[in-house]
Amino acid sequence: MDTVLQHLNSQQQAALDELFEFLRIPSVSADSAFLPDMQRCADFVLQSMSTAGLTAEIIPTKGHPIVYGERIEDASLPTVLVYGHYDVQPPDPLELWTTPPFEPQIRDGRIYARGATDDKGQVFTHLKSIQAWVEKTGRLPVNVKFLIEGEEEVGSDNLDRFLADNKERLKADVAVISDTSQYGDGIPSITYGLRGIVAAEVRLTGPSKDLHSGVFGGSVANPINAIARLCGSLVDEAGSVQIPGFYDDVIELSDKEKQEFVRLPFSEDTFLAETGSGAVFGEAGYSTLERRWVRPTCDINGIVGGYTGEGPKTIVPSKATAKVTCRLVPGQNPKKILTALESFLRERCPPGLTFEFLTFHGCEAFVFDPNSEWINAASAALQAAFGSPPVFIREGGSIPVVSSFQQILGIDTLLLGWGRNTDDLHSPNEHFHVADFHNGILASAHLWQKLADVQR
Amino acid sequence: MDTVLQHLNSQQQAALDELFEFLRIPSVSADSAFLPDMQRCADFVLQSMSTAGLTAEIIPTKGHPIVYGERIEDASLPTVLVYGHYDVQPPDPLELWTTPPFEPQIRDGRIYARGATDDKGQVFTHLKSIQAWVEKTGRLPVNVKFLIEGEEEVGSDNLDRFLADNKERLKADVAVISDTSQYGDGIPSITYGLRGIVAAEVRLTGPSKDLHSGVFGGSVANPINAIARLCGSLVDEAGSVQIPGFYDDVIELSDKEKQEFVRLPFSEDTFLAETGSGAVFGEAGYSTLERRWVRPTCDINGIVGGYTGEGPKTIVPSKATAKVTCRLVPGQNPKKILTALESFLRERCPPGLTFEFLTFHGCEAFVFDPNSEWINAASAALQAAFGSPPVFIREGGSIPVVSSFQQILGIDTLLLGWGRNTDDLHSPNEHFHVADFHNGILASAHLWQKLADVQR
Repeated sequence: MDTVLQHLNSQQQAALDELFEFLRIPSVSADSAFLPDMQRCADFVLQSMSTAGLTAEIIPTKGHPIVYGERIEDASLPTVLVYGHYDVQPPDPLELWTTPPFEPQIRDGRIYARGATDDKGQVFTHLKSIQAWVEKTGRLPVNVKFLIEGEEEVGSDNLDRFLADNKERLKADVAVISDTSQYGDGIPSITYGLRGIVAAEVRLTGPSKDLHSGVFGGSVANPINAIARLCGSLVDEAGSVQIPGFYDDVIELSDKEKQEFVRLPFSEDTFLAETGSGAVFGEAGYSTLERRWVRPTCDINGIVGGYTGEGPKTIVPSKATAKVTCRLVPGQNPKKILTALESFLRERCPPGLTFEFLTFHGCEAFVFDPNSEWINAASAALQAAFGSPPVFIREGGSIPVVSSFQQILGIDTLLLGWGRNTDDLHSPNEHFHVADFHNGILASAHLWQKLADVQR
Repeated sequence: MDTVLQHLNSQQQAALDELFEFLRIPSVSADSAFLPDMQRCADFVLQSMSTAGLTAEIIPTKGHPIVYGERIEDASLPTVLVYGHYDVQPPDPLELWTTPPFEPQIRDGRIYARGATDDKGQVFTHLKSIQAWVEKTGRLPVNVKFLIEGEEEVGSDNLDRFLADNKERLKADVAVISDTSQYGDGIPSITYGLRGIVAAEVRLTGPSKDLHSGVFGGSVANPINAIARLCGSLVDEAGSVQIPGFYDDVIELSDKEKQEFVRLPFSEDTFLAETGSGAVFGEAGYSTLERRWVRPTCDINGIVGGYTGEGPKTIVPSKATAKVTCRLVPGQNPKKILTALESFLRERCPPGLTFEFLTFHGCEAFVFDPNSEWINAASAALQAAFGSPPVFIREGGSIPVVSSFQQILGIDTLLLGWGRNTDDLHSPNEHFHVADFHNGILASAHLWQKLADVQR
């Protein structure tokens, strides 16, 4: 173990250089313009797995390819399935980046690049720790299977099919994912709960073309007025979602968890500074942490219709579109929520407009039993690398693969995030602390050892 | 008169060729990228005035220049102020045009180009009729003053100042504007009423950057949710504007006018086909013509915020913007309505968002006494050119200069439109019927003669 750690400490610059190569590839899965870069990125991951000592291959899907690699030491050892993704969010709006999103740069001890923390930087820690174990000891304390996909940011449409078709091959005792955040600076964390998500797009079409608002205004339904009425009714002024039945199945937080959340350090001023918001706002009766982690939401993520250029334009527009996501919590059923959302919007659509409702990916929320042996092992690994015991938190984001692992492969997932939620993931100037990258590699190296000792 | 008409009939092709030159200049006043074209277009108008026999000049303003020309025959004759505009609406969305907006083409007897009917084609009829009178008789039956501006589509910001500074120079007995439509095919019309307008833009800013909707969703105000709530509350599901006091000062239509509107031919099927709408929709209790001509409205003309590209993006957006116009009717005060609109929106803005309210141009509605001598003279000119007596209609659009002429110069305006409201003005594939262009020139030639006989 010591030689492995020593080696990792001596290889810090080399690991950074390799990560930069990874980050330079603009692997934007949402936009078909980046298709060749997606392939290039998969090739890079394949190469990194081979270098780490895994037997690896690229597996085509109907969308972007999956990169799969494994190293089976001994059937009697625990098997760990490591999941990550090599695709990234679109970098827009580009003008808000200090340096270009795909030209990584270190400033103030942070690596700035799209994908730095979500998820290239984090997934890379596991490959580097494996490589050190293999190079220095010739073996691993556990069997590992790596599944790195390219469609996480667009809903992992082809992943469940792959999991279902490869149940035997992917058989494992536990999964590990590093795609979450530490609770705060110097507070390593294990995330034992996630929110789920449903995503949809509403399209309203009125007149077949933009009309003069003087000549025709008032006599035909205006699709922007309508979409504003529809979307504006979703959440009331007290932050409460108005879709009938939305809260029916929500499992409320236990008193014990509520108390633990209260004990976590939280500064509203820091939160406002981090988000650049003027005030907190959300569902009445809940704290900010509860609103972020254990309460469901309904957010409009994008809206567009009519004339959006300089100056006024006096039209009744032809079309309007809005993108909507609901974050779900344990108990809520994604299909039921989507159906309720669609009905809510459709019922409010005035005559003369065409209503279209498109759905994207969705998944249930997730909760891991915080008293399991696997969690204890991970906790010990984090303490060894970061120097203090982790706190147990939830996370407001969604990792659909976690519920897929549970439902298809029957395994739970350890969510061990090295990043911070101030890393601007999904925002301009996404970054990853250099220290978090290195400590993540060390924690990963410890993890294989600790997981080997778990009684199954 | 006969030689004038004969000459005009022989010059049809030449007039079309000159109009095409006019239409080829992309004089988009809203977009500063077209600044050189605006200057080029003003030069073209100046040249056309000189050719017609007017003494003309280009007058700079703080925005786009005004082109002014006059021909004073005799102080004892009536003086007619002709107004028009050489600027056009932005041509977006370009992909819906069959042929490019600034490459005029005749198809099915229609001239297709941005500005064909609004207003280059219509204003050109008056220049051509004047030119024929001067060339064939050496004089005009009346004095004329031409005022052709370049800022009609962006609110005529510098026109009122020009009118106020040049009251003596612009002194006239009546104004003539051809920027409206005939009621229908073969139904020449005099428009005796217009709706007014106010225009504004609402900008909401929340977090200083787009945030991850999982990490932060539910804990800060979402500017799109908010703008949807604000804008979606403006008009209820029965088509009634919800701004307090909005209808207080509205002068309801007289029973006589109501009866006249009922007599006008109106086919809902044709209306739906023209607008490409699936159904009529508007304020409960009013006919489609009433909704278009004499009822006030509140339309969102454009909205944008967050991610609007392909696929989903799970963000809480930083900003959202909406453009709003209200069409006003006689009795309503633009300032009062704007103030009420701003209060209505501002009161509904949740904490944590920055609320900005920008206003553009506005003007009162207008009604002309349909029994005046000027209207009778114009009616006779239209009958002579088009072969049937005009109907008396109102129009839903706004021509702010009409109320400026009333308030600053103290004169009423004859609204003599040669176009049709199916000409797709402000829409893709704007066009002007060739026959309307030629009949408009003939009606204009008759008009100078008829106006000369009005008892003042």
